[in-house]
Amino acid sequence: MTPEFSLIERFFTRPAATPGRALLGIGDDCALIRATAGEALAISTDTLVAGTHFFADADAGKLGHKALAVNLSDLAAMGATPRYVTLALTLPHIDEVWLAAFSRGFFALADVWQVELIGGDTTRGPLSMTLTVLGAVEAGRALRRDGAKAGDEVWVSGTLGGAALALLHLQAKIVLAPRPLAVAEERLHRPLPRTQLGQDLLGIATAAIDISDGLLADLGHICERSRLAASIERAAIPMSPALLGVRADLRDACVLAGGDDYELCFTAPAAQRTRIEALAGTLALSLTRIGVMQAPDGGKALVRVFDEKRHEVTPAAVGYDQFAAMS
Amino acid sequence: MTPEFSLIERFFTRPAATPGRALLGIGDDCALIRATAGEALAISTDTLVAGTHFFADADAGKLGHKALAVNLSDLAAMGATPRYVTLALTLPHIDEVWLAAFSRGFFALADVWQVELIGGDTTRGPLSMTLTVLGAVEAGRALRRDGAKAGDEVWVSGTLGGAALALLHLQAKIVLAPRPLAVAEERLHRPLPRTQLGQDLLGIATAAIDISDGLLADLGHICERSRLAASIERAAIPMSPALLGVRADLRDACVLAGGDDYELCFTAPAAQRTRIEALAGTLALSLTRIGVMQAPDGGKALVRVFDEKRHEVTPAAVGYDQFAAMS
Repeated sequence: MTPEFSLIERFFTRPAATPGRALLGIGDDCALIRATAGEALAISTDTLVAGTHFFADADAGKLGHKALAVNLSDLAAMGATPRYVTLALTLPHIDEVWLAAFSRGFFALADVWQVELIGGDTTRGPLSMTLTVLGAVEAGRALRRDGAKAGDEVWVSGTLGGAALALLHLQAKIVLAPRPLAVAEERLHRPLPRTQLGQDLLGIATAAIDISDGLLADLGHICERSRLAASIERAAIPMSPALLGVRADLRDACVLAGGDDYELCFTAPAAQRTRIEALAGTLALSLTRIGVMQAPDGGKALVRVFDEKRHEVTPAAVGYDQFAAMS
Repeated sequence: MTPEFSLIERFFTRPAATPGRALLGIGDDCALIRATAGEALAISTDTLVAGTHFFADADAGKLGHKALAVNLSDLAAMGATPRYVTLALTLPHIDEVWLAAFSRGFFALADVWQVELIGGDTTRGPLSMTLTVLGAVEAGRALRRDGAKAGDEVWVSGTLGGAALALLHLQAKIVLAPRPLAVAEERLHRPLPRTQLGQDLLGIATAAIDISDGLLADLGHICERSRLAASIERAAIPMSPALLGVRADLRDACVLAGGDDYELCFTAPAAQRTRIEALAGTLALSLTRIGVMQAPDGGKALVRVFDEKRHEVTPAAVGYDQFAAMS
């Protein structure tokens, strides 16, 4: 047994307390799974790279949580029930303390949603991780990006801008007081996938996306795929409490273009308003109506933002672009 | 649309000439697929990292081929029919020439086996790629590592040692003449997954694995999972023609412990010998009997190697270990 193999075995094989759903899990060339009759499998892959998505000295436990959370967020945006995950981990060297913390963070979240780790790869190189998640969803009901209709209302869950604000502080572009910093950092380091909300929106929402690149960019994807535009009211967007007292231009940038919040943005007919408000109560999660979908208007932006006086606002940045900083 | 997004669109979205099998492909939060009734899905993930698995200046087209080939090889080792793949690509910068070549190499092989690219992620960071492949296989017939029985014969496809020999040359540890170098480099850079062989071995082989870490290490995995040992004859192992004339100790190291050949090693009852030989003819691929599975013998190695005089040989290295070189 090579060290690589025993590494995976030690930190990522678990006592068979909960019998797995997979026909065959870790330890063969492939895992084997079977979908329930009538179900489709939703599949998504996301990579986190040190220096791009997190600082190289980031807390390993939080990283284990976040790597899984951002992938589960994609399943949530389809309304899929999480089932399986594969983990490809690239490490500069074997650090058992780091691995133990990473796997604790990973499994703590996996257990919440009963996600089964069915395979992976451990390789040597600059720190990064790529996860592939698989979830189950009734094919015809999945929340796609292309289902929005003109007249549908635009909603977001939770609050926006917290993760981007924490990043500004960590990059020393602003200085936050301890309490708002704690609130903002929790959003950046321990995002919560809106897994239950996604499933509960099946049959209610017409389209959904998770906000990973920023509200304008991600709502823009719904617009593109649905061949529509959107008008949103800046004052209606639910803002992270950590942003209170932050300069207006930075606040707007965090709320409109800040990534990494992993809330859901979704569209639904006005007739669903009551059900959505009831859902907010059930889940103890704020769900806020921020605008409306409409026919696209030629040269205008896909997502238009209006202020309290119904004047159009021109946002400074549209979304986080990891390649934009390059020369 | 962020540059990242348009990047994926441009190089990895293809004209819908062949209608895809997926219910929903690239462009949403998740892809949606459905398995045929009675079929299980085989899933595997493999990462290739610059500096560990390939040289940073490696030919992009060959890399696109190899990244998919090593993943398809895992499906082959289960006897699964390739169906879908996700591609997570981490790039230091956007290089359109590189991306065009990479995608050409990738799709050329994908088209051979009609594998559909259904999702992925493009991120900024040190060059690496993680693929997740999904294939279909009848669950009860999949070629697992744990199915070998005492008395089963051990077989390998093709020839071994070529890829490891090319690596020795590239590391300037030996100097090969142009012709053997070309043969060896072809194995290292353009491995061919034994996809058809894997499927044809369903109902014939009792266990299978692909040789990625070296014959001894990988046959060792079959031994562990099947709770057996194996005895193999060194002289019977089919050797890459590029190894003719190479010093005996290096030759043995390449053949026994060299990784990256991606041939299949499988076990089958002696009664299947005729069918396997017929299969070799049909596929125009040599299939060679190299030993036998037996009950484990206490302190002895799981895989024992014997020379022409039936004396046991002690191999120098057991398999490629990417972490072993570290301080």
